[in-house]
Order: sequence, then structure tokens, then C-alpha cells
Amino acid sequence: MINLCLFGAGRIGSIHAANVARHAEVNILYVVDANPDAAEKLAALYGARVVSAQQALADPSLDGVIIASSTNTHANLMELSAQAGKAIFCEKPVDLSVDRVRECLAIVADSKVVCSIGFNRRYDPQFSALKQAVEEGKVGKLEMLTITSRDPSPPPVDYIKVSGGLFRDMMIHDFDMARWLLNEEVVEVLATASCQIDPAIGEAGDVDSALVILKTASGKLCQISNSRRACYGYDQRVEAFGSLGMIQVANQLDSSLVITNDQGSTSAKPQYFFLERYEKAYRLELDNFIACIRDGAEPIASGVDGLQSLLLAEAALESSRTGKAVMLSL
Amino acid sequence: MINLCLFGAGRIGSIHAANVARHAEVNILYVVDANPDAAEKLAALYGARVVSAQQALADPSLDGVIIASSTNTHANLMELSAQAGKAIFCEKPVDLSVDRVRECLAIVADSKVVCSIGFNRRYDPQFSALKQAVEEGKVGKLEMLTITSRDPSPPPVDYIKVSGGLFRDMMIHDFDMARWLLNEEVVEVLATASCQIDPAIGEAGDVDSALVILKTASGKLCQISNSRRACYGYDQRVEAFGSLGMIQVANQLDSSLVITNDQGSTSAKPQYFFLERYEKAYRLELDNFIACIRDGAEPIASGVDGLQSLLLAEAALESSRTGKAVMLSL
Amino acid sequence: MINLCLFGAGRIGSIHAANVARHAEVNILYVVDANPDAAEKLAALYGARVVSAQQALADPSLDGVIIASSTNTHANLMELSAQAGKAIFCEKPVDLSVDRVRECLAIVADSKVVCSIGFNRRYDPQFSALKQAVEEGKVGKLEMLTITSRDPSPPPVDYIKVSGGLFRDMMIHDFDMARWLLNEEVVEVLATASCQIDPAIGEAGDVDSALVILKTASGKLCQISNSRRACYGYDQRVEAFGSLGMIQVANQLDSSLVITNDQGSTSAKPQYFFLERYEKAYRLELDNFIACIRDGAEPIASGVDGLQSLLLAEAALESSRTGKAVMLSL
Amino acid sequence: MINLCLFGAGRIGSIHAANVARHAEVNILYVVDANPDAAEKLAALYGARVVSAQQALADPSLDGVIIASSTNTHANLMELSAQAGKAIFCEKPVDLSVDRVRECLAIVADSKVVCSIGFNRRYDPQFSALKQAVEEGKVGKLEMLTITSRDPSPPPVDYIKVSGGLFRDMMIHDFDMARWLLNEEVVEVLATASCQIDPAIGEAGDVDSALVILKTASGKLCQISNSRRACYGYDQRVEAFGSLGMIQVANQLDSSLVITNDQGSTSAKPQYFFLERYEKAYRLELDNFIACIRDGAEPIASGVDGLQSLLLAEAALESSRTGKAVMLSL
Repeated sequence: MINLCLFGAGRIGSIHAANVARHAEVNILYVVDANPDAAEKLAALYGARVVSAQQALADPSLDGVIIASSTNTHANLMELSAQAGKAIFCEKPVDLSVDRVRECLAIVADSKVVCSIGFNRRYDPQFSALKQAVEEGKVGKLEMLTITSRDPSPPPVDYIKVSGGLFRDMMIHDFDMARWLLNEEVVEVLATASCQIDPAIGEAGDVDSALVILKTASGKLCQISNSRRACYGYDQRVEAFGSLGMIQVANQLDSSLVITNDQGSTSAKPQYFFLERYEKAYRLELDNFIACIRDGAEPIASGVDGLQSLLLAEAALESSRTGKAVMLSL
Repeated sequence: MINLCLFGAGRIGSIHAANVARHAEVNILYVVDANPDAAEKLAALYGARVVSAQQALADPSLDGVIIASSTNTHANLMELSAQAGKAIFCEKPVDLSVDRVRECLAIVADSKVVCSIGFNRRYDPQFSALKQAVEEGKVGKLEMLTITSRDPSPPPVDYIKVSGGLFRDMMIHDFDMARWLLNEEVVEVLATASCQIDPAIGEAGDVDSALVILKTASGKLCQISNSRRACYGYDQRVEAFGSLGMIQVANQLDSSLVITNDQGSTSAKPQYFFLERYEKAYRLELDNFIACIRDGAEPIASGVDGLQSLLLAEAALESSRTGKAVMLSL
Repeated sequence: MINLCLFGAGRIGSIHAANVARHAEVNILYVVDANPDAAEKLAALYGARVVSAQQALADPSLDGVIIASSTNTHANLMELSAQAGKAIFCEKPVDLSVDRVRECLAIVADSKVVCSIGFNRRYDPQFSALKQAVEEGKVGKLEMLTITSRDPSPPPVDYIKVSGGLFRDMMIHDFDMARWLLNEEVVEVLATASCQIDPAIGEAGDVDSALVILKTASGKLCQISNSRRACYGYDQRVEAFGSLGMIQVANQLDSSLVITNDQGSTSAKPQYFFLERYEKAYRLELDNFIACIRDGAEPIASGVDGLQSLLLAEAALESSRTGKAVMLSL
Repeated sequence: MINLCLFGAGRIGSIHAANVARHAEVNILYVVDANPDAAEKLAALYGARVVSAQQALADPSLDGVIIASSTNTHANLMELSAQAGKAIFCEKPVDLSVDRVRECLAIVADSKVVCSIGFNRRYDPQFSALKQAVEEGKVGKLEMLTITSRDPSPPPVDYIKVSGGLFRDMMIHDFDMARWLLNEEVVEVLATASCQIDPAIGEAGDVDSALVILKTASGKLCQISNSRRACYGYDQRVEAFGSLGMIQVANQLDSSLVITNDQGSTSAKPQYFFLERYEKAYRLELDNFIACIRDGAEPIASGVDGLQSLLLAEAALESSRTGKAVMLSL
């Protein structure tokens, strides 16, 4: 039996709990949340106990933790868990401060515990099929990557104010996708952004539309486009172009019905947002975490991946403000 | 708690058992199978007991049965279950003999128990979305239906010999689809068939390729094409055409990657066969059965649906042999 | 210089004239039409002279004729032209009477002149690519053909009354497509039809919706569906299925724009009707006729093709009325 | 009768000549080319005379000129033609030097003659449908444009050396597309490029892969990707994204056949290169030029459009070399 503690009983925590429950040999032993009602409710569902972080981590029978609490608690919980020798699955980002992330990852590295960061898209069956096809040489030498990533609608401005901004909060997923598929570190970042959707986002110091170019040492190029609002739903596409061809991952649609009438032929909208689009990915990332604990598997996304993506986000933010390419040392 | 007995511990029985296990409030109490090893193995997985049909049906705490044993046992088990007052979910077909089906359904009707027949395609999200769209008038008045149904490869000839033949064994699903979508009984059947894939199928007295036309009293038309072998996988498409347009359900593909190279643009094959294609449908048909027991919901496919589809299969077989349209009385 | 006479200065005659005019070395010498105004107008456009059929055919410098006049004049003009030794391009059908067609073709055969029948779809680049791919074995052994053919809207009832009915007037194109692609004569025809669109069509003794099944001696199967009204435009699709795969020809759309919004993703309607859809085919069939005269090329569709399609139309009509398969001798 | 002189009897000149020949009321009076054989051959085809530029421009019956000679002759011929009062159609670019373009356009402006620059893509039916849809508000407020433009294979290195480089020679079409669709001048340009396909291109001082970001004063964003080699053919796609949705123009394929077999479903490659892809556009741009002369129509692309695109190319080249955004004054 594998025993886990869940930090955070909110929406994403509940999803992870349900995915854990699919494993007969894995048990959610503890739920920890600042909100006792939420914690009790979720704990009751899975026969877990509500305790403090200290109590949970002190239990020698605990194998690992799932950190799905608010961003500002991530680094601290990772450090405590690492020091207690527990395997870690943590939602991205580790922290919004690069220095804090480095500090935290150093402690985690010392502890030698499993550390998996929730870059859910890597676990999506479509994107992992793309990754595999690229590695099998289906596009020959990869030369150009195009990542389109648009949310159905902007988050509340109050969230935007504490989110770290579009580059750190939203595009970070695309930076991770880029690094993962390019399979080579980025050395140059150019970015431009604007506020076109809601002036309130601009007043909060953020942008809602952004284009970024990445370049690797060998000259591979990647372009990323982000918008906080696509009226047709969650737009999640990737195109890998190389010497022998191109692979495209299209949006996943709500249904495969095509209605043809005097207006033309209409197919369904993309699945609405990340909960729908990455439902399977959320399941598979927990499966992977459990396999890490049980079988010594490797996390598909590590703490270092979390750091590197944050560095790209920082670079993009700087470039978008200075109008200059930001060079990264390898 | 709802208690069920599973008749048949084979492939399809295992799928139903796993789908039942997803419901915390439903219990597989008994497994019955002529093969004690298979029965024990499946029972162990779900904490069930292996008993005889009589023992199972004698238990007053038993709420319903899932009949997934061999076809020749279906009618008998349905009758016994009905007489014992148990809700029935039975794989199609009820029986290969129309008379036997009528006899069995009379007994089931007398018992007033729930009776759901496993026409899995009705539960498929794509086809039920099609059904709903047609009912909402998205194609206006439905005038023409086109059903394409091709298996990836023929079953063993030994199976074909006892299968009842292509019309009763394979096209019966399409007859049910036609009746369900046309929402009107068929009054005329024309059929042609040939053996083009494997002469051994012809020697066994069956065909492997068939085209059928159905007509309703109001003049609605339906064409069905069946082949026992599509080298590209399981081909399951439906097109509904009417006064205001057309709705098409395309095949569900293994992935949504599109690879473009010097050969053109290639997308994935259709999902291989019914276990993959109708995975969700199998889950939803059991959900429906459980809702029938628990909430008094209606089965989406009833015993009468099983009988009517068999009558269409008989008519098609006769038409394909005589070269004459077979008229059905309403 | 190749000199041609155009019989018929109507819509389709004008199209042929414009396509001839693209050839610098081909000349429309004469235009013949019962309506002198129409004849003069078209003749003026291309520097031709308006004469009688007799005058035109008496000119020894005349190489060939394009017969685009009304159906009831086709056979007669073909005979006169053949007897005058002129190459013939004639719009389908030769005649609505099988006996009359046989009589006419006998005279044409005796004369040994080129005789090309305007089955325009054979010249369509999409369908000829399909034909070629099937002949190259891209689907292996062809086993099943599905032809969908729906007009955007029914013709006036006055036209329907003299048209010979849906099978002879509309589905005749699909019978020709079937014969051409099957590359084997049909031995069995089953048909059903109904009047679902406009009761006036039924009162005129015709049908507006029809399904037909064809079978060849080797067991190849073909299904054809016709409707006189598809609200989304001209629906012209063919699917060839065989031992190694399937080839589909989709509709040609008005544009390739795809608009994605909160209603889903919408692509354009099919090209409206035959003038748009087969614009290129009309050009290519005249190119072929000119190549027959100039280079001794073979017509892609011959008088015998015209006769055979008419025989299938007769058989389908009979089957739809008797409910019996009609057998054809090879 | 409209009389034209064609400068340049090469490949593109021949295409323009053939498109002019489709107009009965337009005459190619003169052909001018440094290569007398090429000039004579083309002139013979259309009944034109081979003369010098001076002779042609001195003829008061001459209405306009088509300049399809080598790039370094464009500006000079434009000036001479303008001074002679002839309507001008000139292939892009006017010149590779911004100063020379300004000088030339000043003279052309003074002369008040028609001046149409051959940005062929503006005349493509797909892209003009996109332009119209955007103007009709189909995407609401346009916010982001994505232009993908990849050639099937790099030109000879000798050509690359005199081409002005990827930004001026190839991406200039995309800059024009961006300006045309954004309908607002660009104020900021960021660019990155690399040499990934052929080191010889790099040795010639050029790049073969490039990504560019454009921004307008109102914050609209545009990303452009170029590659000198797409093994699947000419990749020409545009996506316009806005507040109410997205419009995509897909590649135009060689055929609409879809072959499904045990490898998946394969559709045809994009049309090979610009001659195939923009065949209709070449025809329509000449139609427009003739309409400018005959009816006083406006050129769809003017000399100023030629200058502005060159300025964007210069800016992109500078940005790709300095790593800094280049700001343009409106």
C-alpha cells in the first residue's frame, strides 16, 4: 500500500484525489488544507484524515505528498516534504521567484526524493504521441516549433494581480512544452505583448496577448502565441516542423459530429478548458507519480524543468519590456 | 447497495464487471460461468462468490443480472431472472430464433422487470449526440440515413458457423441504429450480399459483404453497408440527411496527430475494434442499467428493440436470397 | 484547323462553345438552333454562321458536331452526323427509349465516326484521379462502391414530367460512374424510391429520393443514393472500398476558409451545382473530343456507355416499382 | 483596344502574357527583353513586336506596361514608363534599396499614372475572402495574425546571393500580407533567424529559417514564420484571430482524394509552388490592372505598399542582427 498526503482540497486537489482513488493499492491517508471544511469534505470522500502538515509528514508510513495548495505555499511544503523523505508531486509553479525556486530545489536535490512537477501537458496522450513521433524522426531534424495557447476567457483581475503575470502564469506551460519538444535549451528569447482584451488587465500591470520567439544554440526556432480569451474555447495546438515534414496536434473537440446545412459544414468547438482538455493528462500524471514511488520510474517533468520554464518566463517578460533579445547562458 | 449477478466471465463480462466496479453503491455479488476457473478469477477481483444460476437467483437480496454468457443461454437466463423478479441486462441477441425471442419476451413482459438489451452503440456519446440533434430538428425532416459498418477482420470461420450469419450477428447492430434514428418502423427491406473476402466464409453458408435498403411507411430511406474486413480498422459511420441539412458522425481515430510529408498529410487510423471504439458506451450502458434499478430510469434499448432488429435481419437474409423486397407489417 | 458545328445554343451549348474557343486551332463554324435569336447571339460571339443542320452537315470542311440541343433531337442529329461522317460529341442521354438508342448507335457504329457522350463526371479531375488510383491498386481488389449524389434543389415539375424520371434523368450519371469505376458490368439491380420533398413530384409520377444497389457477376457491390434537394448544395461524393483500403472523394467547397467561433468551426458549402462543380470537367471533355478528332484519341465515354447506363436506369425503375431485383444479361 | 508592352519574356512574363491574352480587348503590342530569342518567341505567340524600351514607350497608342524583367531594371523602367504616361504593372520588389524605391515612387506619383505592384497573394481568392471576412467583422476586432510561409525548396545559392536575402526576397510577401490584413501600419518589428537547411546559404550571408513578430500602434500582433524548404510543398497559411473568433486559410491541395489504409488516412500534398498555388491570383492581378486602365479601378497593391513592405524587411533584417526591436515611425 502506498500512502499519500494531499495538500490543498480545492478544485485541482479534488481531481488528483479522484485520480489516486482509481488505484486500489494507493491510499490518501491525510488531507491538509487551511480551510477545514474543504479538507473534511474531501477527506470523508476517500476515508482520509484531516491533519496538519507537521502531523502528516511525521508519519513514517507516509510515502509521498501531492501539493495542490496555493502557489505561495509550494516551495515551503516541498522543502518540508523533502526533509521528511517523502516523494513529491507539486503543481506548477514551484514559486514565482527564481531565487526561491533555486533554494527549494537545492534542498529537494539533497534529499534525493522523487520530485515531479505538474506540467500536465506532457502527459496528454496527443502531445506525448507528438513527442514520441519527433523522437522517432518523423519530422527529420526538428527546425521550427509553433505553439498556440489561448484560454477561453481571462481570469478575474484579482487573480491576475497575484498570478505573476501572463508569462509566468500562463505561458509557462508553453515554455515547458517548447523545452520538452525542442530537446535542447533555449539561448535567446524575444517577446512582445499587448493588452487588447480588457483594459483592467493592463491597469493591473499585465498583458493579455503575447507573442514570443525562442532560439536554441543549434538554431532551432520556436514561436508561441498566447491570448487570455478565445471565444471558441481552449485553443491548444502544437506544430513541429523539420527537414522531413511537419506534425500537427489539433484541438480536441467536444464531439465529432459535423452538421452541414445552408451555412456550411460545422464541427464542434474545442473542449472548453483545461479540466476537460487535460482530463486524461491529469490521470496519467498521477499514474506516473505513483509509478515513481512504486517502481522507481522517472518523473516526466522534474523540479529543474520547473525552474527552466520560470527562467524563460522571466526572460520573456524582460524582453517584452525592453524590446531587446534576452540571452540565456546554458 | 445494489447487488448484481454476472452471468458469463469472458471478455465482455469482464468489461461489464469493471464498469460496475466504478459505482461505489453497486456490488457484484455472484459470478456464474460454465468455466469455474474463469468464474473464480473474475469473482476474486471483485469480491464476488461463484455460484450456480439457481443459487444466485434464489437470493432475495439480488437486484439484477448481467447476462454476458454465450448466445444460446440468453433466453433461458432471461426467463429465469424475470421469473425471479430480477432486473435484466442482456447482451444482444436475445436468441437467434424469432419464435424463441417472442416466447422469452412474453415471460419477461409478464414479470414487469427492467429489461435492457446491450445495443451498445445507442450509448456511444457520438451517436447519442446525433440522435439528440436529429430529434432537435437539426436536419429538419429526416429523409435518408446512411450507415457504414465494417469490422477490421472477419471472425474465425468456426464462429461464423454458429453466429447466425452476417445479418443476424453483425448487421443487427445497424438495424437497431436505423430503427433508433429513423424513429419509425421499417416496412420494406431489400438486401444483396456476396462473399468477396474469404471463400471459407461462403463455404460456411455466410456472406462477408452486404448492402441493405430499408424503407419506412412515411417513405424514409436507409442504406446500410457491411463488410467483415476493413484493413484500416473498425469503420463506424452514420450520416443523417434531411430537409434542413445533414449530420455526419465520423470515425473516432487513435490520435489527432496529422503528419505532413512528401507523401501528403496522414491522420491516424480509426480505433481498432469495438472494445476501443465503444469503451465509453459500455460504461454508459451499465450506468443506465444501474439507473434503471436505482431510479426507475428507462432502458435505452429494450427487449422489443432486440426482437425488431432480429426481424429486420431475418427479412434482409430472405431478401438477399430471393431477390425480392420483404414487406413487414407494422 | 478543326471545324465544328454546335447544335443547341442554350446554357450548356454556350459552355461548350466557350471551351472550344480556348483552342486556337479549333473553330466553331456553324451554330444550329430552333431559336434563331439564341443561335445568332452565340454565333456572333465566336464568328460562326447560323445555318440549318442539313447545310452544316453538307459542308465537307466540317470535322465534327457538338450536340447540345434538347434530348428528343439527340438521336436524330447523331444519325445524320454519323451518316455525314462527322465526329460526334453528344450530351447524355442519347434518347430516353432504349430501342431508339440501340437503333441510333447501330447507325453510328456503321459510320465508324468518333462518338463521345457527355458523361461530364468522368472528366472531373477528382473522379479521374480516383479512377486512376483504383486502377493502380490503391484499394487492392475493389469490393464496394458508395455514390452519393444530391442536387441542391428539384427542377420545375414541368421539366420532371418530360425528364424520363429520376432514374433516367439524374441517377443515370451515377450509373455511369458505377460502371466506370467498377470496371465490370452490373448483373443485378435493386431499387427503392419515395417522394419526400414535394408532393407535386409524386403527382407527376416521379420520385425525389432513391436508393439503389448494384451487383456485378464477381460479387462487387455498389450503393447509390439520390435526392433532388440538398439544402447545402450539390452533394457529389464517391467512396471506393477494397481489400487494401478506401478512397474517398469529398465535395469541392466554395472556399477553404474555416471560421471558428462560439458556434464551432465552419467551412464553406459545396460548390452550388453542376456548372460550378464540373466547370473543369466540361473543359476537359471538350479537350478530349478535340483530341479524338485531331490525334485519334479514344472518347472517355462512348455511345455504348450511354446505352448501358440507360439500361441500368430502366432496371432500377422497374425494381423500384415491382420490389424485385432485376437481373441483367451481360 | 488596350495596348500593352511586356518587359521581360521569362517565366513570369509568359504567365502575364497568357493572362492578358484571355482578354479579347487587350493586345500585347510589344515585347522587350535583353535576350532577343526569348523576346521573339513570346512575341510570335501573341502577335507582338520585339522592340527596345524606348521604341515601345514612344508609341502614343501604348496604354500600359507590364514589368517582369530582372529586379535591378524595375525602378528604371517604372520611371521611364511613368514619364511616358503609361500605366504600370510591376513585379515586386520595386528595388532592393529603400532610397531608390522612394526616388522612383516620387517620379511615378508625379506622373499620376496607374501603378500596380505584383503582390500576387492579395489577388488569391482564398486570401481575398479572408480579407473580406475580416472586414465584415467575422472575427470581431482583429488581435493576432499568424502567417506561415514556407517554400518547397531553396533557390540556387547564386540566386540567394543577389536576392537581397530572405527578408527582402521571400518574407516581403508576408509583410505585405500582414499590412493588408492588419489594416494598420506596423510600429515595431522583432526578428530571429538561423541557417538550418543548407550551410551554403549561411556562407552566402543569408538565413533559411526565420521568425518575426510585428506590432501595430493599437497593439495588434502578428507572427510570421518562413522556411526555405518544406518537403511537403508550398506551405501558405494564414490565421486571423480576434475578439469574436478565428479564420484560417488552409493550404490548397493537389487533389481532394483521401486514401485510408493500414497507415491511416492520407490526403494530398499542398500545391507544389507559387505557379500552381497562385495561378488564379496571377490571372486576377492582370484582370485588375486591365480594369485600372479601362475603368479607372484602383490597384489592390500600390507602389507605397511595395515601399512599406521593404521597410519592414529592412527592419526585420536589422532586428535579427542586433537582437533589438526596431521601431518604425508611422
